[in-house]
Amino acid sequence: MIDDQTGTDRAVAAASVTAAPLTVSRRSSRVRPFEVMTILNRVFEMRAEGRDVISLCVGEPQQGAPADVRRRAAEVVLDGTDLGYSEVFGIVGLRERIAEHYRRWYGVEVPVSRIAVTSGSSGAFDMVFLASFDAGDRVALATPGYPAYTNILRAQDVEVVELPCGPDVRFQPTVEMLEAAHRQEPLKGLMLASPANPTGTMISREELAALAGWCAENGVRLISDEIYHGVTFGSSKGTSLLECSDTGVVISSFSKYWGMTGWRLGWAILPEDLVKPCDDIAGNLALCPPVPAQHACVEAFTEESYAECDAAVAGFARARQLVLDAVEGLGWTNMAPADGAFYMYFRIDQVLGVYRDATAWCAGLLEREGVALAPGLDFDPVNGRDYVRLSLAAGPENIAEALTRIRRFQDSSAG
Amino acid sequence: MIDDQTGTDRAVAAASVTAAPLTVSRRSSRVRPFEVMTILNRVFEMRAEGRDVISLCVGEPQQGAPADVRRRAAEVVLDGTDLGYSEVFGIVGLRERIAEHYRRWYGVEVPVSRIAVTSGSSGAFDMVFLASFDAGDRVALATPGYPAYTNILRAQDVEVVELPCGPDVRFQPTVEMLEAAHRQEPLKGLMLASPANPTGTMISREELAALAGWCAENGVRLISDEIYHGVTFGSSKGTSLLECSDTGVVISSFSKYWGMTGWRLGWAILPEDLVKPCDDIAGNLALCPPVPAQHACVEAFTEESYAECDAAVAGFARARQLVLDAVEGLGWTNMAPADGAFYMYFRIDQVLGVYRDATAWCAGLLEREGVALAPGLDFDPVNGRDYVRLSLAAGPENIAEALTRIRRFQDSSAG
Repeated sequence: MIDDQTGTDRAVAAASVTAAPLTVSRRSSRVRPFEVMTILNRVFEMRAEGRDVISLCVGEPQQGAPADVRRRAAEVVLDGTDLGYSEVFGIVGLRERIAEHYRRWYGVEVPVSRIAVTSGSSGAFDMVFLASFDAGDRVALATPGYPAYTNILRAQDVEVVELPCGPDVRFQPTVEMLEAAHRQEPLKGLMLASPANPTGTMISREELAALAGWCAENGVRLISDEIYHGVTFGSSKGTSLLECSDTGVVISSFSKYWGMTGWRLGWAILPEDLVKPCDDIAGNLALCPPVPAQHACVEAFTEESYAECDAAVAGFARARQLVLDAVEGLGWTNMAPADGAFYMYFRIDQVLGVYRDATAWCAGLLEREGVALAPGLDFDPVNGRDYVRLSLAAGPENIAEALTRIRRFQDSSAG
Repeated sequence: MIDDQTGTDRAVAAASVTAAPLTVSRRSSRVRPFEVMTILNRVFEMRAEGRDVISLCVGEPQQGAPADVRRRAAEVVLDGTDLGYSEVFGIVGLRERIAEHYRRWYGVEVPVSRIAVTSGSSGAFDMVFLASFDAGDRVALATPGYPAYTNILRAQDVEVVELPCGPDVRFQPTVEMLEAAHRQEPLKGLMLASPANPTGTMISREELAALAGWCAENGVRLISDEIYHGVTFGSSKGTSLLECSDTGVVISSFSKYWGMTGWRLGWAILPEDLVKPCDDIAGNLALCPPVPAQHACVEAFTEESYAECDAAVAGFARARQLVLDAVEGLGWTNMAPADGAFYMYFRIDQVLGVYRDATAWCAGLLEREGVALAPGLDFDPVNGRDYVRLSLAAGPENIAEALTRIRRFQDSSAG
């Protein structure tokens, strides 16, 4: 097929080709660096230098995996015989336990065939977004929100429609906001999180049902991030989307309630029509989730494991109360109720002192007092410059010490 | 901005919107199911039914992780204190050991800053492809080849340019093929694998240098899949792209030589210009690779671990010889030399008997004799119907038994 080219054509083609430089993709430039990870890297550096750092910048429970899980993990790695690839969606034994968990917490029946175990909830987001959306599709989400939603979607060339949600709507989208965005140009998806990151607010059962109903009527795929379920300060573990929709997607993880961030194990509960597309995608993009963690997490649902996790949540609740008691004295405002998750989100523009914004303030706090908070710009590219997120996951003792250091920092940096 | 719509406009918009059904993405339909995983799922089912199945369908070494790795894994999970998120690119201690490994095997120096530990090599492919290519970019690769390359690229809307490579070129691309494809429309990338899956062929140092030189001159990003390095049957562990390029990407893994498929731990060696884009992407899409496996794999580079892995490779070599001795009697043809990996790829169209193609033949063999091979269509959508891939990873005893069963199956199914 190239034989009919003339010699001149070939020379021209070769010359233009030789000039092409190696490039980086344009889509990678649409992924904003996840500043929390940058701060975390600085925390690792400072600790390596021997500095005493309290990290309240990521959602990392200190208690670690339940004892039953760790014992089982040690058994399977020492035995070593059953650690080859698993089924794409994970071992059946674990998926059966996850189904039991949905009966226990929510009273809903989930067929094992609809449960996909993934490499953290991160693996579930990547898989579900690819299966649900094409380049150019519009997906709505609340701002402030977890930045990785936006960054993963943009890496996939999906258009993110940010719905500004303030303290008046407890930082959660409403049907009215969706209708307005949908009228401009139809939406293909809605991403919800309850309890939310960075604000800790939860969506009530009635609100969730209304949002799910609107999505079903309007051909909008609803994806519900439920990874903070169980990390809640009232009587509810959280309302699952499964209680009011069979066309939406639920995403969850062992990272938060079970305290297993580094193990990288999560799951998605898929509607029937996404099962095969997700299986095809995960079978190519991931092959299978980490197998030692899968075997270990079969033990995550024992009575002892639930009791350990609930005890950790009680510690987060004590930490939350310490912060609530300190907020007024610190001059932080616009707090959301923080019904769950282990985050609290505050407006600090009145106490920035010598710092130009919350990002600079956080950098100063980390270097001078060894306390790592997350600056709000990660969660809200517009108003975030006035906000910080504080994670309660380090527990009450660390929070108490951090509050002392923050007071000292604010006193010494007042403008 | 919607206030100036008339009531009629709004009613029309609402009506058209209500009609929209929930859909699955078009890009998910471009991902061909990875048939090997389907066969593997059937193997799990048959074993659950109590059937004795020899699986030669995936690249799964039977020896498992080295003893030092398993011991260290048990220690870290029992201790449990250091299993939160790691740095995005993995713990520094592991990255330092990987750098030492490149000095040991290839005599090259790799800065730790260019080493990104990932969730298997799968995580590295996803990250590197997103950082390197945009929708519509053309990336060339050899056919037959590992189907996940094509499927991941297509899920990312990248155009895959298949270079048909027969036994005459030992199933590997040549500079001439690249020039022809590039003249049609410029390429942005080239994916190489040596030793290759499914054929086991290796690219010589001279060929690799020529391909790398051509890519550098033509602005084509070269990505070298080196996950089968060390699983080689001659004196070379494989030539690394790092020996002849500082703009290409090397991808590797603990899955194959170290026998750790289910642990999901791999890595990429990145050129300087891809370090930040990959860090941004991985920090959002993956957060970090599995942490218990990272700590454990620090022990993958002890003398004892290398010795265990080399012993496993000696077993694959004995298995390979058993197959070589049997091939002529079986009537299988077009064999590649199989310099490495633990795969052999054969043309079986002369012995299909009552079966219409290799896919049906493989299904028959699995059901009737409990031997799982991979049909060639996974690796080559055109000529693959005449081919099968056999994995040596199950070791010589299993291979000997499998060959006995295959002979019996061919005798009984002759047309």
